[in-house]
Amino acid sequence: MAEEVEMGNEMWGGRFSGGVDELMERINRSIDIDKRLYKEDIAVSMAHVSMLVRVGLLKREEGVQLEEGLTRVLGEIESGKFGFHDHLEDIHMNVEHRLRELIGPLAGKLHTGRSRNDQVVTDVRLWLRGEIDGLEILLEGLQRVLLLRSREHAGTLMPGYTHLQVAQPVTFGHHLMAYVEMLGRDRERLRDCRVRVNESPLGSGALSGTSFPIDREHTSEILGFGCVMRNSMDGVSSRDFVLEFLSVGLNMSLHLSRLAEELVLWTTEGFGFVKLSEGMTTGSSMMPQKRNPDAAELVRAKPGQLLGCLSSLSVVMKGLPLTYAKDMQEDKKSLFDAVDTLTLSILVMGEMVRGLEVDKVSMRKALDKGYPTATDLADWLVQELDIPFREAHRITGRIVSEAERLGLQLSEMPLELMRETDGRIGEGVYEVLLPERSLDRRTSFGGSSPACVLRAIEEAERRFLRDRGGEEK
Amino acid sequence: MAEEVEMGNEMWGGRFSGGVDELMERINRSIDIDKRLYKEDIAVSMAHVSMLVRVGLLKREEGVQLEEGLTRVLGEIESGKFGFHDHLEDIHMNVEHRLRELIGPLAGKLHTGRSRNDQVVTDVRLWLRGEIDGLEILLEGLQRVLLLRSREHAGTLMPGYTHLQVAQPVTFGHHLMAYVEMLGRDRERLRDCRVRVNESPLGSGALSGTSFPIDREHTSEILGFGCVMRNSMDGVSSRDFVLEFLSVGLNMSLHLSRLAEELVLWTTEGFGFVKLSEGMTTGSSMMPQKRNPDAAELVRAKPGQLLGCLSSLSVVMKGLPLTYAKDMQEDKKSLFDAVDTLTLSILVMGEMVRGLEVDKVSMRKALDKGYPTATDLADWLVQELDIPFREAHRITGRIVSEAERLGLQLSEMPLELMRETDGRIGEGVYEVLLPERSLDRRTSFGGSSPACVLRAIEEAERRFLRDRGGEEK
Amino acid sequence: MAEEVEMGNEMWGGRFSGGVDELMERINRSIDIDKRLYKEDIAVSMAHVSMLVRVGLLKREEGVQLEEGLTRVLGEIESGKFGFHDHLEDIHMNVEHRLRELIGPLAGKLHTGRSRNDQVVTDVRLWLRGEIDGLEILLEGLQRVLLLRSREHAGTLMPGYTHLQVAQPVTFGHHLMAYVEMLGRDRERLRDCRVRVNESPLGSGALSGTSFPIDREHTSEILGFGCVMRNSMDGVSSRDFVLEFLSVGLNMSLHLSRLAEELVLWTTEGFGFVKLSEGMTTGSSMMPQKRNPDAAELVRAKPGQLLGCLSSLSVVMKGLPLTYAKDMQEDKKSLFDAVDTLTLSILVMGEMVRGLEVDKVSMRKALDKGYPTATDLADWLVQELDIPFREAHRITGRIVSEAERLGLQLSEMPLELMRETDGRIGEGVYEVLLPERSLDRRTSFGGSSPACVLRAIEEAERRFLRDRGGEEK
Amino acid sequence: MAEEVEMGNEMWGGRFSGGVDELMERINRSIDIDKRLYKEDIAVSMAHVSMLVRVGLLKREEGVQLEEGLTRVLGEIESGKFGFHDHLEDIHMNVEHRLRELIGPLAGKLHTGRSRNDQVVTDVRLWLRGEIDGLEILLEGLQRVLLLRSREHAGTLMPGYTHLQVAQPVTFGHHLMAYVEMLGRDRERLRDCRVRVNESPLGSGALSGTSFPIDREHTSEILGFGCVMRNSMDGVSSRDFVLEFLSVGLNMSLHLSRLAEELVLWTTEGFGFVKLSEGMTTGSSMMPQKRNPDAAELVRAKPGQLLGCLSSLSVVMKGLPLTYAKDMQEDKKSLFDAVDTLTLSILVMGEMVRGLEVDKVSMRKALDKGYPTATDLADWLVQELDIPFREAHRITGRIVSEAERLGLQLSEMPLELMRETDGRIGEGVYEVLLPERSLDRRTSFGGSSPACVLRAIEEAERRFLRDRGGEEK
Repeated sequence: MAEEVEMGNEMWGGRFSGGVDELMERINRSIDIDKRLYKEDIAVSMAHVSMLVRVGLLKREEGVQLEEGLTRVLGEIESGKFGFHDHLEDIHMNVEHRLRELIGPLAGKLHTGRSRNDQVVTDVRLWLRGEIDGLEILLEGLQRVLLLRSREHAGTLMPGYTHLQVAQPVTFGHHLMAYVEMLGRDRERLRDCRVRVNESPLGSGALSGTSFPIDREHTSEILGFGCVMRNSMDGVSSRDFVLEFLSVGLNMSLHLSRLAEELVLWTTEGFGFVKLSEGMTTGSSMMPQKRNPDAAELVRAKPGQLLGCLSSLSVVMKGLPLTYAKDMQEDKKSLFDAVDTLTLSILVMGEMVRGLEVDKVSMRKALDKGYPTATDLADWLVQELDIPFREAHRITGRIVSEAERLGLQLSEMPLELMRETDGRIGEGVYEVLLPERSLDRRTSFGGSSPACVLRAIEEAERRFLRDRGGEEK
Repeated sequence: MAEEVEMGNEMWGGRFSGGVDELMERINRSIDIDKRLYKEDIAVSMAHVSMLVRVGLLKREEGVQLEEGLTRVLGEIESGKFGFHDHLEDIHMNVEHRLRELIGPLAGKLHTGRSRNDQVVTDVRLWLRGEIDGLEILLEGLQRVLLLRSREHAGTLMPGYTHLQVAQPVTFGHHLMAYVEMLGRDRERLRDCRVRVNESPLGSGALSGTSFPIDREHTSEILGFGCVMRNSMDGVSSRDFVLEFLSVGLNMSLHLSRLAEELVLWTTEGFGFVKLSEGMTTGSSMMPQKRNPDAAELVRAKPGQLLGCLSSLSVVMKGLPLTYAKDMQEDKKSLFDAVDTLTLSILVMGEMVRGLEVDKVSMRKALDKGYPTATDLADWLVQELDIPFREAHRITGRIVSEAERLGLQLSEMPLELMRETDGRIGEGVYEVLLPERSLDRRTSFGGSSPACVLRAIEEAERRFLRDRGGEEK
Repeated sequence: MAEEVEMGNEMWGGRFSGGVDELMERINRSIDIDKRLYKEDIAVSMAHVSMLVRVGLLKREEGVQLEEGLTRVLGEIESGKFGFHDHLEDIHMNVEHRLRELIGPLAGKLHTGRSRNDQVVTDVRLWLRGEIDGLEILLEGLQRVLLLRSREHAGTLMPGYTHLQVAQPVTFGHHLMAYVEMLGRDRERLRDCRVRVNESPLGSGALSGTSFPIDREHTSEILGFGCVMRNSMDGVSSRDFVLEFLSVGLNMSLHLSRLAEELVLWTTEGFGFVKLSEGMTTGSSMMPQKRNPDAAELVRAKPGQLLGCLSSLSVVMKGLPLTYAKDMQEDKKSLFDAVDTLTLSILVMGEMVRGLEVDKVSMRKALDKGYPTATDLADWLVQELDIPFREAHRITGRIVSEAERLGLQLSEMPLELMRETDGRIGEGVYEVLLPERSLDRRTSFGGSSPACVLRAIEEAERRFLRDRGGEEK
Repeated sequence: MAEEVEMGNEMWGGRFSGGVDELMERINRSIDIDKRLYKEDIAVSMAHVSMLVRVGLLKREEGVQLEEGLTRVLGEIESGKFGFHDHLEDIHMNVEHRLRELIGPLAGKLHTGRSRNDQVVTDVRLWLRGEIDGLEILLEGLQRVLLLRSREHAGTLMPGYTHLQVAQPVTFGHHLMAYVEMLGRDRERLRDCRVRVNESPLGSGALSGTSFPIDREHTSEILGFGCVMRNSMDGVSSRDFVLEFLSVGLNMSLHLSRLAEELVLWTTEGFGFVKLSEGMTTGSSMMPQKRNPDAAELVRAKPGQLLGCLSSLSVVMKGLPLTYAKDMQEDKKSLFDAVDTLTLSILVMGEMVRGLEVDKVSMRKALDKGYPTATDLADWLVQELDIPFREAHRITGRIVSEAERLGLQLSEMPLELMRETDGRIGEGVYEVLLPERSLDRRTSFGGSSPACVLRAIEEAERRFLRDRGGEEK
């Protein structure tokens, strides 16, 4: 390097005054983020020690000392007494460094037959497995709340919308049950993902395994992994399990976002279907009367965070040659952000649904607009008068236009007026024109009649809730 | 609307000369895209007819006529005689319109008890199920090629890299087997996704089911669905199955992209490990000598397409209230693009791997740089001399520096020089310093020794290949 | 390659029956996409010929022949007589191939001193420049419609929302003017982007320039470029101009998406503020009464497409070493999709706004809910009674609660009741409690009083409209 | 709400033990993030106070007290003595709360005529303006380093690559200068973006302006804004300035990522063109000899972060109705992450380039492979023998094949052998076959000949560097 290139802080306009070392430390260190893995890191080390003893690479008493040391480190971290050091870069080095302070050079044997490459990804897999289990519990909790509110409102009429236009009558319970199903699939995806998360890369070494006679099955079993990964290069190089989790989370977040948007809409003056509990709203600094659905808005926004995390890691992994590259260190920030966002979103949604005050009168009144029984009229024409559907559709269209012109609901239309459009129409038609009647007839499987909804709730409780409250726990 | 606002084409600076109708048709129509669903659309209609007859909503002879008509429409489309009309907007209306021409007003009965909302998503699910099955076959084909090449090169030495720096010896077969594992997980994800794709929304109606006494189980069975979706609003509103597929595809594409990057690297003058078959490279218009890895570069780029599709649909679904909204029409473009991209990428990768010419000499020579047996030296110090790993690491570092200074490989280092660093080192150390020896010792499960690799190949063939070529089919 | 690897179609489960050549052609060819650049490709060739003649690399008569040939090719393409060939891969080869048929081996001189690498990116830059200009015209057209509707409704009261809750009174004109400003910034960004698009890479050769004595200034001038790019490697490697355009388009699309969402909301039964023209809505196959805002929903969804394109190309460009790599071919699909989407979105939005039927009564009535003058009350307390803002806020909150309890609007609250909360309040307070009064007082620059809005419209017309309709052109 | 829905922590499987309030606080608070805006928040308040005094809404002595109070708050924050409170939610409330403690109820007057909605976005704009200026200085610094290294290596031969295959000779200086140009455009984009960032929304109030006689020009001037935003609803609703910045940052990050990838490649054993300074590499825990380019890998990965931020905010803004919604709070996390990532990436890249050790011998040797002068041969055939380019291309191809077969470089090919392919070739051809000669001839503007490169450096220094070191500033 030519001498004239030696420039210091002035090169950066005074915006960076540290040396190269500090710069490198800043971009390279991950300890701020990965210290969150301390428990898993120590668990992995414990399992490794147990295995090293078992295969004879450590003496039994060495194993005991290492385990005691690790236990002390764990205790120090949990009690907040542990001093994390930035210059030690990551959680592994921090733990090992402290271990050396506590038990001396024996600490150096801990790293026998392993590498940071397999260690870190084992840590992450363990940690994520725990979080997946936690998220499933939260999702079940949210389903439970939705099921309770659904049961309460299995017969509460409200408009079902397409294109946000009143379309057909449904019940509030039926509407909420749609989300129970969506979250059910999210749980399935979590469980499928968990299987692939729960594989042990430990023992892959830096990339090619090791010449030490390690026993990968043993560590895998201690740590509760479902199986041992079969190719060492794959073990340290792959992050598809993180990407899969992020996309499962994205779908989940999108489901919550849709319900959140509905809460925002339903609490507007225009709709007025529900009120959020005061705890879940905020006031305005300038408009004292406002009850703003801040929590719902934030849940609505969160798919941004999830898509951001997924995009971020996808960019990182694109075209990355095997095996480990430092680029992959970026996986943890995305993963941690995603888990935190999802956890908070589910909890908040649960509390919002739980505290929702439903205004049945507003919901019912909204059915007086938009001709929600027009389809019923068309179906009646088909079923009772054997008119082909498309023709029935046209007749209905004409009657609706006439009703609109007169400012009448369909159930208020005089029979003679309807007969002007089609003379075959008889008294029986009124059986289907009132939303309540219309609703009761939608008895196809999965349909919106209160009876169907109640059956669906029963069935969903069996399917989704592990503990249904009673003696059959 | 005020009169002064009536402006025509001049408003748009002459850039749009059609009327409002044409504009609406242009943004609204999906026929260019969804005509691809014709086969599924007709299959769904066939199943629907069969069910309508069964429950008595159609007379048997009406059913026969409708089925014959649909069969003729199918025949016309497959033979290229069908005239698609833009103004009929989508595949459903095109089919029904032609059906009416063929069999008259009876065609109007086809839509009894269903809606375009449940119809279109049933079509998409059927179509995607078929494509998932196709992609699994292609992935198996690619695994088969990789397995064959792995077996051929189970013992072909090459450097294993971390940070793209020579790290430890592996074999080319071991390296390729990492991808067999990745693709195996992609197949698992496809199968998991298939379960959720393969649920029948048919009978959800526009959003709330129907008052016709339809039999959803019947249509579901005819169409081969695994189950009937349990909530009608969920049935027409959800697109998580598309998003899930897109993320499965993204992971797959990222795996292919990593291998593609390696092919690009390995064919450079600097590496020179492999040659791509001539069919898979192109020349340059200005540089006649070039053999450019265009196909590999395109596969490397394709995760862009997949992430694009996934981002696109995520944005669309964010905050969308139930039930159907036109926004969702955007799902198909993303889905079709993704499937086409994946299909082509797998096929191209298969042909590239199949035709790869491997330069064993170059691979072996690359191991003469970068001290790939340094870890073995450290491990030897631990195993033979019982030195703690971290200390062994330091000793090794000093020996490597010395070797570097002298321009020697580790296996060429005179014993006395090594002993200057640590007097305990003896003759036995040479057992591990040659890459071939080092490799043979990496016998931990999933490790890179040729024996391990062969075992892994056997096992993977059993796990991944349905037909293993012989009598045991 | 080992013989046993030779497998054909059966490897792919019958899913691909072509040979390697067909596969390579399929992944490699871009002609389906880049034929759209034919006009620019020929313009670039024309300019190149002119320059080659000028510097003596072509004889004058050779130049004439080449130009005549290119003109004929152009004519054939424009009249639809040109036969595009897939096996010729891209637009450049198709044109040159036909040129050779027309004028013989002289066609081979056309490529003197250039490469496809500089040619294709020059084509794309020229094409995009034209599209940018077109989009600016469309945006101006949309602003014009918005300005007209704003002027018409400069005084039409409606609620201004925060958190979709009624907050303060504004006018419909004021609301629309917010979009005029946003689109104005989109236009600025387009113009800024245009400067960077409009640089000539022609003459960069494959990557390092050329030894032919070409005159890059000359071709640049003929093609109307603003300047010549200064580094040949940069010239062929960079696609930041495409990425910049895509992000400009993303912002634009997000603006349109917000207005589209408002149109969807305002046309609901709950709001009922506007009606879309019939041409811009569609009916339902099952619910004859529906007028669905399909066009608005599609515009709302389109940021998905734009973000998709941007994500896609970002992934492609990540970590791509210089100079040209085939990965970059992916830029065109993203770019063309984006331009088409934007063009259609602006046009459709223009027609929707133009045809909007405004229901002033509904808008005004919506102000009777939500206490939109609460802030005015607080401000009055501050201004008239010199109460610190935060305290005034608390007093107002108490009065609003009381009004809510009584079911009264603020302007209906008896003075004595307000005085119970704070005895200092006097008659004058009614000056600000009616929305009309409140509105008139919001006269701060950029505020919502009708007078402010009219001033803003005048000013915006001057700023944004090139031709303001009259003689003052 | 039904009683049976009252569930506590057990609902969440013990995973959340706080109450609703704590939950709401957790999702709602932004203080952890936005406290970073303290300086701007106080500056905005100062300007607001000055204006309130000027227009008579505050007495002069009130203004003085408020300013003194704000100054003390600033001092406390800067000296680390300020106690941030989570329950006060954001930076604005924290500052005002402390102000009240210091100066009493007068603090309540600070919020006269403004709202958190206009305040927060004013803060963000101010902060971002400062960061943009800082980033420009850093980019200039990086350009300065690149220019110095380019000058040093204006004549250092290396291969120029297309498709990562050796294509034509360039110089290392020429290669680096490509990045100087890219960064130059990034700076332009920053400056364009700055204009739109630097507009004052202050005075927009909650959404509709205010009835207080505020002077928006005055605050705008004090704070150094370029202009006042013209529509109050736009002022509080728009975040296009953030999105624009994020896309400018994305492009910047992609440029750095490409150079980072090249550094990773160039430091491999296969290329060996450069060495990174020790400070910018790390060792391996298992492989003591490794010098891993961690810093380069991290810079390569960072476009993921940027695209993530941009995607995230795009999702948030999609379909958001005017005006302020809580969703927008998400803008700050994305923005702060992006700025930090960019700052660190530029600094690290600067240090890497500065410390780069160039191996001229390796670079030159790489030109002995890949026939980098083949184009020169073709061009010579065109120029000297007047052979059409396409034919010259074919002749060259044949000669290269022959050379390849014989293992010779082009400059080593005997004349008679070349004449066998085309008898017209004479001695003069050797003038162009050596890379050094070839290079010297690439004198087209922007080309790679050392003379061109030096001229380009001179010109770029004038264009990009404000202070060129000496008195000629």
